[in-house]
Amino acid sequence: MVSIITAGFTIAVGSIAPALGEGRALAQALLAIAQQPDESPTITRTLFVGLAMIESTAIYCFVVALIIMFANPFWDFVAGG
Amino acid sequence: MVSIITAGFTIAVGSIAPALGEGRALAQALLAIAQQPDESPTITRTLFVGLAMIESTAIYCFVVALIIMFANPFWDFVAGG
Amino acid sequence: MVSIITAGFTIAVGSIAPALGEGRALAQALLAIAQQPDESPTITRTLFVGLAMIESTAIYCFVVALIIMFANPFWDFVAGG
Amino acid sequence: MVSIITAGFTIAVGSIAPALGEGRALAQALLAIAQQPDESPTITRTLFVGLAMIESTAIYCFVVALIIMFANPFWDFVAGG
Amino acid sequence: MVSIITAGFTIAVGSIAPALGEGRALAQALLAIAQQPDESPTITRTLFVGLAMIESTAIYCFVVALIIMFANPFWDFVAGG
Amino acid sequence: MVSIITAGFTIAVGSIAPALGEGRALAQALLAIAQQPDESPTITRTLFVGLAMIESTAIYCFVVALIIMFANPFWDFVAGG
Amino acid sequence: MVSIITAGFTIAVGSIAPALGEGRALAQALLAIAQQPDESPTITRTLFVGLAMIESTAIYCFVVALIIMFANPFWDFVAGG
Amino acid sequence: MVSIITAGFTIAVGSIAPALGEGRALAQALLAIAQQPDESPTITRTLFVGLAMIESTAIYCFVVALIIMFANPFWDFVAGG
Amino acid sequence: MVSIITAGFTIAVGSIAPALGEGRALAQALLAIAQQPDESPTITRTLFVGLAMIESTAIYCFVVALIIMFANPFWDFVAGG
Amino acid sequence: MVSIITAGFTIAVGSIAPALGEGRALAQALLAIAQQPDESPTITRTLFVGLAMIESTAIYCFVVALIIMFANPFWDFVAGG
Amino acid sequence: MVSIITAGFTIAVGSIAPALGEGRALAQALLAIAQQPDESPTITRTLFVGLAMIESTAIYCFVVALIIMFANPFWDFVAGG
Amino acid sequence: MVSIITAGFTIAVGSIAPALGEGRALAQALLAIAQQPDESPTITRTLFVGLAMIESTAIYCFVVALIIMFANPFWDFVAGG
Amino acid sequence: MVSIITAGFTIAVGSIAPALGEGRALAQALLAIAQQPDESPTITRTLFVGLAMIESTAIYCFVVALIIMFANPFWDFVAGG
Amino acid sequence: MVSIITAGFTIAVGSIAPALGEGRALAQALLAIAQQPDESPTITRTLFVGLAMIESTAIYCFVVALIIMFANPFWDFVAGG
Repeated sequence: MVSIITAGFTIAVGSIAPALGEGRALAQALLAIAQQPDESPTITRTLFVGLAMIESTAIYCFVVALIIMFANPFWDFVAGG
Repeated sequence: MVSIITAGFTIAVGSIAPALGEGRALAQALLAIAQQPDESPTITRTLFVGLAMIESTAIYCFVVALIIMFANPFWDFVAGG
Repeated sequence: MVSIITAGFTIAVGSIAPALGEGRALAQALLAIAQQPDESPTITRTLFVGLAMIESTAIYCFVVALIIMFANPFWDFVAGG
Repeated sequence: MVSIITAGFTIAVGSIAPALGEGRALAQALLAIAQQPDESPTITRTLFVGLAMIESTAIYCFVVALIIMFANPFWDFVAGG
Repeated sequence: MVSIITAGFTIAVGSIAPALGEGRALAQALLAIAQQPDESPTITRTLFVGLAMIESTAIYCFVVALIIMFANPFWDFVAGG
Repeated sequence: MVSIITAGFTIAVGSIAPALGEGRALAQALLAIAQQPDESPTITRTLFVGLAMIESTAIYCFVVALIIMFANPFWDFVAGG
Repeated sequence: MVSIITAGFTIAVGSIAPALGEGRALAQALLAIAQQPDESPTITRTLFVGLAMIESTAIYCFVVALIIMFANPFWDFVAGG
Repeated sequence: MVSIITAGFTIAVGSIAPALGEGRALAQALLAIAQQPDESPTITRTLFVGLAMIESTAIYCFVVALIIMFANPFWDFVAGG
Repeated sequence: MVSIITAGFTIAVGSIAPALGEGRALAQALLAIAQQPDESPTITRTLFVGLAMIESTAIYCFVVALIIMFANPFWDFVAGG
Repeated sequence: MVSIITAGFTIAVGSIAPALGEGRALAQALLAIAQQPDESPTITRTLFVGLAMIESTAIYCFVVALIIMFANPFWDFVAGG
Repeated sequence: MVSIITAGFTIAVGSIAPALGEGRALAQALLAIAQQPDESPTITRTLFVGLAMIESTAIYCFVVALIIMFANPFWDFVAGG
Repeated sequence: MVSIITAGFTIAVGSIAPALGEGRALAQALLAIAQQPDESPTITRTLFVGLAMIESTAIYCFVVALIIMFANPFWDFVAGG
Repeated sequence: MVSIITAGFTIAVGSIAPALGEGRALAQALLAIAQQPDESPTITRTLFVGLAMIESTAIYCFVVALIIMFANPFWDFVAGG
Repeated sequence: MVSIITAGFTIAVGSIAPALGEGRALAQALLAIAQQPDESPTITRTLFVGLAMIESTAIYCFVVALIIMFANPFWDFVAGG
């Protein structure tokens, strides 16, 4: 039963940092566009590549949460025990 | 019964960071518009794409909370046990 | 009985971040209007769209709190058990 | 009996963030008026709309606290049990 | 007996944020008056309206604390039980 | 007996925020007087009105602490029980 | 016996904020005197009135601590019980 | 026996804030002297009056700690009990 | 069973710092591009090499989490015990 | 036996704030000397008087710690009990 | 069994600081390149040497985690006991 | 046995603040030398006197730790008991 | 068995501060090189000597962790007991 | 056995502050060299003397940790008991 708590905890805690990091990067990107409108395509492209990289840590947590809930190897052990 | 606590905890903690991150990005966006009114469409478009990306981490938590409350695989096990 | 605690905790914790985020965005919006009075309509419109997006995370928590108090699927189980 | 604790905790914690957020927005509004006295009506109007939106998260907590104290659905269950 | 603790905790925690928020707003108001003495009436009026709005969250806590101590609906239940 | 702890805790925690808020407002007031000596009466008057408003949250805590120690309605119940 | 702990805790915690607040106000006052030596009497007078107001929250705690140690109404109850 | 812990805790915690507050005021005083050497007597006098006021909160804690260790009214009760 | 908790905790905590660090680096990169558009290729290349290095600490956590869940050497011991 | 823990805790916690406060005052003093080399004697004298005042809070803790370890009035009670 | 928890905890906590430190250094490096494009090779080389040095603390943790999981000297003791 | 824990705790916690305070003072001293190379002897002398004063709080902790480990008055009591 | 936890905890906590400190020093070094390219060799040399000094605290922790795991003097006592 | 935990805790916590303090001093030293290259020998010499002083607090912890592990006076007591 503890895996429910763990899954919720994992996805909840694991989404704090990416959201903060992305918010910071996004805020700075808008400031950068306002300072150098001519570099807008370069900034936007770098921003989205970087956001995807940060998002990947959130996805790691999401994957682990799903593994814990649906496909953890202890399931068969518990079911059979 | 612990899944109720987990669901509430997940959505409560999981919505802290996106709200803070979006608030920061939005605040910077308004500052950017004030500095470069001519780039307003570009800033607004980048802002909303980025907000959607940050919102996605909140939605991950919302999805996991709903899964925990309505469709977790342990339900059948508990019901049958 | 634990669902009362969870509901109160969810809505209490879940309303911290949106309030802080909206306060920050609103504060910056007023600063932006003071710097660029001519862009006041654009800033106000962007502000309200963004506030609605941040408010959505508070509403997620409110929805989950109401579900926990009035319509959680464990209710029938407890009532019948 | 736990609902008394929950109600007090909910309204106490739930009023931290709105008060801080409103304090911040109000402080910035006064600064904005001092910088652009001519935009005073616009700033004041935007301020009050935004304060109302922030206040709404405090009211969510107030509503949930009252529901927990006076009208929670578990009441009949406890009274009848 | 727990309602005594809750009442004290509610009013103690619930008065942290309003005091901080009001202190911040008041500090900024004085700075604003020093920068724009001519706008002193407008700033003072906006300040007091905003302070009243922040004070309202402290009053919510005060009301809930009084309800918990003098008029909570569980009282009859305990007295009769 | 718990009411002694509660009373001490209430007045101790409840006096943190007003003291900090008043300290901040007072510090800013002195800075404002230094910047605009001519506005000294206005600043002083606004300062004392605002300090009284902040002090009110400390007084709420003081009142609740005294009620808890001397006049709480549970007293008769305990004395009679 | 718990009243000893409470008295110590009350005066210890209750003197944190006034000391910090007064330190901040005093620091700013010195800066203000350095910026506007001509306004030194006004600044000093406002400073001491404000310090007295902040000190009052520390005195509230001191009073409550003494009441708890020497004159709390439960004393007779304990002595008689 | 608990009074030993309380006395140590009281004086330890109660000396944190005065030391920080005095450190801050002292630091600012030195900066003020560097900016306005001509006002050095006024600054030094105001500094020492203010430091004495901050020190008073530390002395409150020291007094309460000594009372707890040597002269608390429960002593006779324990000795006689 | 404790390994489920550990795995979730590891990946959740372990992804906080990389996300924050990457968000900071990305934000600064965008600022740097806005300041020196001509150095955009150098900045982007350095950014991605550095991000990969930061990401490596997240991958360490991911590897350890997978080892804990699927291939920890205690598994045979528990299965055989 | 608890007095050993208390003594260590008292001197450990009680030396945090004076060290930080003195570090801050010392740092500012060096900056002040660098800005106004001519006022170096005044700054140094004020610094050492202030440091002695801050040090006094550390000495309060040291005294209480020694009292707790060597001369607390409960000692005879324990030895005789 | 506790070594699983320890390994996860070690690598999770141990990767917080390196990631933050590297993020900070990387962010500053990009800023430095933007300010002095001509020194780009020197900055990049110093950056990577420094990153490797910071990374070493993360590797210490990784090594200890692996030792704890696969080769700790208590293993034989437990297996033989 | 608890005195081992206390000694370690005392010296560990007691060395946090002096190290931070000295680091801050040292950092500012270097900045001061860079700004006023001509005042280098005065700054260095004041720095070392101040560092010695800060170091004294660490030495208090070291002395108390040694007293606790080697010469605490309870030792004979325990040995004889 | 507790030595496994201690070893992991020691190296995990002990590597936080060096990594942060080195990251800060490295970041400042890059800024310094960007400001004074001509002093690059001096800065780099001072940086590496300082980094080695900071790294030494991490190595202290690493040494203690290894001692705890492989060569602690209690081992023979436990093995023989 | 508790001395293992204490030793690890002592050296882990005790190395946080020196590492941070040294990192700060080192970072400022590099900045100072960049601002005043001519004062480089003076800055470097002062830096290393100060670092040695800060390092001393880490060495205090290291000494206490070694004493606790190898030569604490309770050892004979435990071995003989």
